[in-house]
Order: sequence, then C-alpha cells, then structure tokens
Amino acid sequence: MQPAPKTITAAILVIGDEILSGRTKDQNIGFIAEYLTRIGIELREVRVVPDIEEEIVAGVQALSTRYTYLFTTGGIGPTHDDITADCVAKAMGVSIDVDERAVELLLTRMKRSDLNEMRLRMCRIPKGADLILNPISAAPGFKIGNVMVLAGVPRIMQAMLDNVAQTLETGVKIQSVSLDAPLPEGVYAAGLMAIAAQYADVSIGSYPSFGTAGGRNNQIVLRGKDEALLAKASDDVRALIAQLVAERAPS
Amino acid sequence: MQPAPKTITAAILVIGDEILSGRTKDQNIGFIAEYLTRIGIELREVRVVPDIEEEIVAGVQALSTRYTYLFTTGGIGPTHDDITADCVAKAMGVSIDVDERAVELLLTRMKRSDLNEMRLRMCRIPKGADLILNPISAAPGFKIGNVMVLAGVPRIMQAMLDNVAQTLETGVKIQSVSLDAPLPEGVYAAGLMAIAAQYADVSIGSYPSFGTAGGRNNQIVLRGKDEALLAKASDDVRALIAQLVAERAPS
Repeated sequence: MQPAPKTITAAILVIGDEILSGRTKDQNIGFIAEYLTRIGIELREVRVVPDIEEEIVAGVQALSTRYTYLFTTGGIGPTHDDITADCVAKAMGVSIDVDERAVELLLTRMKRSDLNEMRLRMCRIPKGADLILNPISAAPGFKIGNVMVLAGVPRIMQAMLDNVAQTLETGVKIQSVSLDAPLPEGVYAAGLMAIAAQYADVSIGSYPSFGTAGGRNNQIVLRGKDEALLAKASDDVRALIAQLVAERAPS
Repeated sequence: MQPAPKTITAAILVIGDEILSGRTKDQNIGFIAEYLTRIGIELREVRVVPDIEEEIVAGVQALSTRYTYLFTTGGIGPTHDDITADCVAKAMGVSIDVDERAVELLLTRMKRSDLNEMRLRMCRIPKGADLILNPISAAPGFKIGNVMVLAGVPRIMQAMLDNVAQTLETGVKIQSVSLDAPLPEGVYAAGLMAIAAQYADVSIGSYPSFGTAGGRNNQIVLRGKDEALLAKASDDVRALIAQLVAERAPS
C-alpha cells in the first residue's frame, strides 16, 4: 500500500490597524492564498488583528499550533507601531535582540552612522530564527519554528515569500477545474448536490455572479488531489449542465 | 462629568473555500472596514474560514461573544456548499426552518413551481431572526442577535449592508488625518515615537510605500475620537517632518 498523500496546511495572520480601518485594502491574503495552492500547501484560515501586543501574541499562538505553517504580514518596520517581531518572540517563548546578521544586511544599504536606534528595531530578530532576505529594502523577515514573518508592503512580502517558499515542505497539489454554468444556481443545485455526494474526495463549489447576465454567469469549481477522480466528477457536472441547458432550450 | 463616549466594535467572518484557495480575491473585508469606520463602528478582527460546519460555528461563537457586532459574508445561496444559515443557527442555539417571509420575497422573482427544494434552502432562516432585504436577487440575509448574515457576492453584500446599517448602534466616529512624509521611515521614527508617547488617545501609524521613490512616499496616519487632540498631534507631526526635511536640504 502506498503511504497516504501528505497534507500540509497553513494560516495567515495579517497584522495591521490600517487594514481594519479600511484605509489600506489588503492585497496579501489573495496573493499568498494563490501561491500556497500552487505549491501544494492548503490555506485553512486567515485572521486580521490590530497592532496590539496581546492580539498578535494570541493570534500567533492559536494559528501556529493548529497548522503546519503560519505566515504573518506587516509590522516589521522601524516605527513605534511595528511590534510584530517582539510579539512573535513572546508567542514562541524565546528572547529577542538586535541580530548582527540583520545589521550587516542593513549596512549594505546605509552608512553605519545612519543606522539609528529606530532603524535597529528592524534588526530585532527572535533567538534561533533564520532570516528571510528582502531584496527590495534590505530589512529582513524571519522564520522561527513554523512561523514566517513577512513584510506588509506587497512587493516586499512577495519577494520574501519567494525566498522562504523553497524551504517549506509541500504536499500533494490540489488540482481544480472551473466550469461555466449558464443557468441560475437553483436550477442545477439539486443535481450538483447529488454529484457532490458521490465524490467525497472532490470538493465542489458553486459561485454565482450577478453581473449583466443576472446570475447566469455562474461557475462551478471542482477541487481535489486525485486527478482521475476530479476528471470523472467534472465530466458528470458537464453532463448535468448540458442536460439542463438542453431542457430549457425552446423546442 | 460627561459620560464616556461609547465604543461599538465589530468583527467580520468571511466564509468561503474560494477565498482560501485564492480563486476569488475577497473584496468585502476592505469595503466593510471602510463602511464601519465611516459610521462609527470599530472593526477589531477578521477571520476567513472554510465551508466546514465546525469552523463556521466556532468562528461565529468566538467573534459574536467578543464584539458588539459580527458580520458574516458568504454561503447563503441554494447549493449544497451554502451552509452558513444552519451553522449560525447552531452557533446561536436556535432552531432553523423555511421562513414564510423569505418565501414571499423569492416569489416576487419566480413562479412557485420554480421554487424547488434547493431554492427553498435560501429561505432557511434561524428562529427569531430579522430579514435583511436583498434588492439584487431577492434571497435575503438576516440578523439574529448581534450577528448579521450577508451574501458573499460584493454587489449584494453592499446592498444588504446599507439596509442593515440603519438598525445598528454606532459610537463616536474615529477621525483620521493622513500626512505625507517624504523621508525614509528611519529618519522620522524616533521623533514620531516621542509624539505618539505624548498622545495616548491618538493612534499614530507610519505606512511606507516602496514605489518609484524608493520608500520615500510614506504616509503617517493619525486616528482618534477627540478632534482637538487629533489636530494638535497632527500639527506636531507636521512640524517634525518639516524640520527633518529642512535639515536634510542641501545648505
């Protein structure tokens, strides 16, 4: 017997008052979600919390203990509201101090005399962490245990994610098939439920669209790890939709 | 003595595998965040969970007990993956059944013979809930206790939010001031921290931008409920930035 395919899970903790106030529209959740799906890691939960120590510590502890990996975004700059590194150290129960490796990285971009006390905050790295390189603005993220601490600025976050992704364990990739359903959901819902009941290992979702066509631009998305099973379920859904479209066509 | 200004808080629970897989990019969090800020409700937390009963029930219970209001989005359509209404009923400890008021609403858009068993799923409303009207596609959301159950399709969610917002208690609006800071964060971080320490009731954030100007298009955002205090803190930050810009100008 073959070993069961490994499932690798993840969560995201978005840290930032600016997301909760609506001032900044988050772009990181969608990017990380798509990225992880592509490399075979299943995103299971996302939380957005404010720049408050207890909230960040609680979020890191809840999510890092429940999933294979936790990605945090935001709060690693030099200003007083950047408290993520210290909170992650506290959550993981390790000490934190200025890290000479991080100092060296910042010195590739600035003179030592410009490395003031606030900028040194960006070099505070929990003990035992590996740095995650930042090719854009030098100040690194880090990985401690199963927690990856990334920047909040999307361009920097994306570069960091690329750098750390190579070090992560990945599982079987989830494949997906999207099918157009030019019918109201209520017309195909019963047939779709019957198909879903036959394929426990394929997740089937129906996503309505209320654009110009008034809810008839829907998509049915099938997702699963077993390609043959996915193809079979997709064929069943295609046949269902074709049959229902034919039934509704004027004779 | 005047009574302390009331603080009204909220959380959002986004329900949907499609957000976690990255297939759909959420547009509701940012919209609701901005909306609530505008009407004087403070968004304190967001969670995104999959279409799994235990996850939804746990999310509703955790967030509805902690904040004044909880808004859920997604999972109220007619297909088998739409399980939000039943999960919310379970979380709130009430029964759920087809609601005649919801049936009447659907019948304004379709013949009774088209109201099949799956479409009737959209009329399942927890006992004691008030309906939230949906002018786009008729199937209503609902409000039970402090939980508002809204659609996932942005256009419908927005219309429902408009309809339910009038029934909500709101607190003192948080005002905000955004100031451009044409300097690297590390140059003004110490001065900004000193100002932040003087104004405990003003939250001050620094948001770097790494666009074409290499991290010098930053914004400093001050937020608070007391307008006079906010104006004073903003003046201090303006003076700080002006002084630092002058110091860096070639003499």
